[in-house]
Amino acid sequence: MYAERIAGLKSSAIRDILKLTSREGMISFAGGLPAPELFPLKEVSEAAQRALSKYGSNALQYAITEGLMPLREKIVQTLAPGSTRLTLNHLIITQGSQQGLELIGKLYLDKGSVVFTETPSYLGALQAFRLFQAEIAPIATDDQGILPSALRGALKKRRPAFLYLMPNFQNPTGVSLSLERRREIVEIAKNNDLLLVEDDPYGDLFYEGEKQTSLFTLSEGKNIIYLSTFSKTIAPGLRVAFAAADEEIAGKLAMIKQGTDLQTNTLGQYIVNEYLESGLLPEHLRKLRTTYRSRRDLMLVAMKTHFPSTITWNCPGGGMFLWVTLPENWDARDILLRCLEHNVAFVPGQEFFPDGSGRNTMRMNFSNASPENIEEGIKRMGEVLKKLS
Amino acid sequence: MYAERIAGLKSSAIRDILKLTSREGMISFAGGLPAPELFPLKEVSEAAQRALSKYGSNALQYAITEGLMPLREKIVQTLAPGSTRLTLNHLIITQGSQQGLELIGKLYLDKGSVVFTETPSYLGALQAFRLFQAEIAPIATDDQGILPSALRGALKKRRPAFLYLMPNFQNPTGVSLSLERRREIVEIAKNNDLLLVEDDPYGDLFYEGEKQTSLFTLSEGKNIIYLSTFSKTIAPGLRVAFAAADEEIAGKLAMIKQGTDLQTNTLGQYIVNEYLESGLLPEHLRKLRTTYRSRRDLMLVAMKTHFPSTITWNCPGGGMFLWVTLPENWDARDILLRCLEHNVAFVPGQEFFPDGSGRNTMRMNFSNASPENIEEGIKRMGEVLKKLS
Repeated sequence: MYAERIAGLKSSAIRDILKLTSREGMISFAGGLPAPELFPLKEVSEAAQRALSKYGSNALQYAITEGLMPLREKIVQTLAPGSTRLTLNHLIITQGSQQGLELIGKLYLDKGSVVFTETPSYLGALQAFRLFQAEIAPIATDDQGILPSALRGALKKRRPAFLYLMPNFQNPTGVSLSLERRREIVEIAKNNDLLLVEDDPYGDLFYEGEKQTSLFTLSEGKNIIYLSTFSKTIAPGLRVAFAAADEEIAGKLAMIKQGTDLQTNTLGQYIVNEYLESGLLPEHLRKLRTTYRSRRDLMLVAMKTHFPSTITWNCPGGGMFLWVTLPENWDARDILLRCLEHNVAFVPGQEFFPDGSGRNTMRMNFSNASPENIEEGIKRMGEVLKKLS
Repeated sequence: MYAERIAGLKSSAIRDILKLTSREGMISFAGGLPAPELFPLKEVSEAAQRALSKYGSNALQYAITEGLMPLREKIVQTLAPGSTRLTLNHLIITQGSQQGLELIGKLYLDKGSVVFTETPSYLGALQAFRLFQAEIAPIATDDQGILPSALRGALKKRRPAFLYLMPNFQNPTGVSLSLERRREIVEIAKNNDLLLVEDDPYGDLFYEGEKQTSLFTLSEGKNIIYLSTFSKTIAPGLRVAFAAADEEIAGKLAMIKQGTDLQTNTLGQYIVNEYLESGLLPEHLRKLRTTYRSRRDLMLVAMKTHFPSTITWNCPGGGMFLWVTLPENWDARDILLRCLEHNVAFVPGQEFFPDGSGRNTMRMNFSNASPENIEEGIKRMGEVLKKLS
């Protein structure tokens, strides 16, 4: 007999359909994959060699649950340069940010606990929290992120375990929380003793201006857990990410991680540490930003050229996704089925709405496809959409 | 506010004490570490290079949750050579066997669920299951493993979610389940529709005879989950392990893993795959067996020389641990404190008893220390023990 939580797990029909995207000739805007041709393959390979020759068997042995100390030191220095407030003890390495979400779920969620999220929200987070039988309560969100007034209203009605949000170039919408709202959310959190979970996988992938100030910084690290990752900036297959929080929370997360998977893979941590030590990351980030920006722009131009005028979309300032809105009575799942016949794919937005709304929305990934495929794929989608207009 | 499960988490005093074992000059028989000087460092390094040059960015990209297909194929062939019964769909790669235990917990355990275990049992498993607020019900166990009669009796009284056991060279005792008992346990499980969870990290590390038949084989893969790992045979820091079960269970475990950490690290999976492809594992296993056998024997001889005659111990046929029994009224935790003063460490056995018994027992690791340190460490322990006799 399975546990009660399993009955609540829905196998996603869309996920099954999207398995078709590995088909020959398919152009997929569905996944959330970084561009593999941009991986620093040679540098990672060299970092692996250096790690194994410098640290020998230590790079393959069991290691402490909290994560490799020199790596944690480097991350602390990046998160809070020159600060003495943030130390090693505030930070643990996780097996991808997905594990950060699961550990937070384990630490805070009982059956029936409430989690506040943006509307829509990241599917992986919803999955992680639902495994602890939490109830997801989505808070109204617009093109500048979550609405402070909606959050205030919701807090008057119920007491959530935490508010989960992705303030930078959110997955799925690409929307960012404005600075003004960041300050407001932090203020509301402070006044209501509300724990914030800030998920920031894309913060370094900004295509205009500069890096946004995190809620973690604005909150001075109090009553907040900050998650980020090297999956989008170096390579996802290394599964090296991190969680920063106050010492007590970080300690509890480490204690839970011990019973969950003992530790993040040692070699991956050494590789990331060596890569950071080589000082190549800032230049690599510039390259990622330039390339992804041009792919975003290419997709925007292609949509303008090929999509009917009844369809609208946003222009995210960074990240890997943009968000398309269809006429109100359309269902993106039907569009997907037609698009698949023409060998092009995306994710219907409804997947990301905890309340099942958003039928007429689509998430489009612009980081993974080549420029040629972006042009061709959007053209194919445009043909499908025009027929329905 | 933390989740209810957190209140039940005990921070282990012993664990805190054992942090001292990283002190200069300490000889530790406490950890469960393989010998780092035996890691196939050069071969793993070459496998990493080959993986990155053969598979390029694929070795660093996101990959399917179930795990790398060629690696799963190789494991299937090793588990059931020539069999058509076991396929890729029966197997998922996990981030260490610890993750296998956590996923099983997530799949089967509600608050208050009962888990049957050996007495004593593996601490990491107890931790994983307790995170789901399960109640651990230990079943009487002797020097041939769990007692079938005790299992039968327990099943008359309560219905567990599963029976967790480590039939080969168990952690902590080094005890193996006899073949006769294996058949009996499988028969009892079949008659009572009891799910078995067979944890087998040490099965390839046998120092006499040949590899034991698994419960998984005896059960023909029905109503059983089999866990094993490359942590003890290649290197733990890669965090590559696996779970085998029927297709439905394996599918459910994969679905849960997706919300837990998305996937096991891609590079580690490619490295293990390359290493297996090179055909070097059988020879490496022979080397591990020879070395660990001689360390075990050395420890046995040293104990005979230096320990007082009131103290007894077993001679495990494989694995990494042996088990020491002190006179009945002694407390191994006191011995540990005295031993630490003499820079030698072990784990008090009580840690591993779900019911808090076993105060007069000790777990001794013989795989990690050098021959010189085994001799010297046992001598130091002998001096402490003689003073107390």
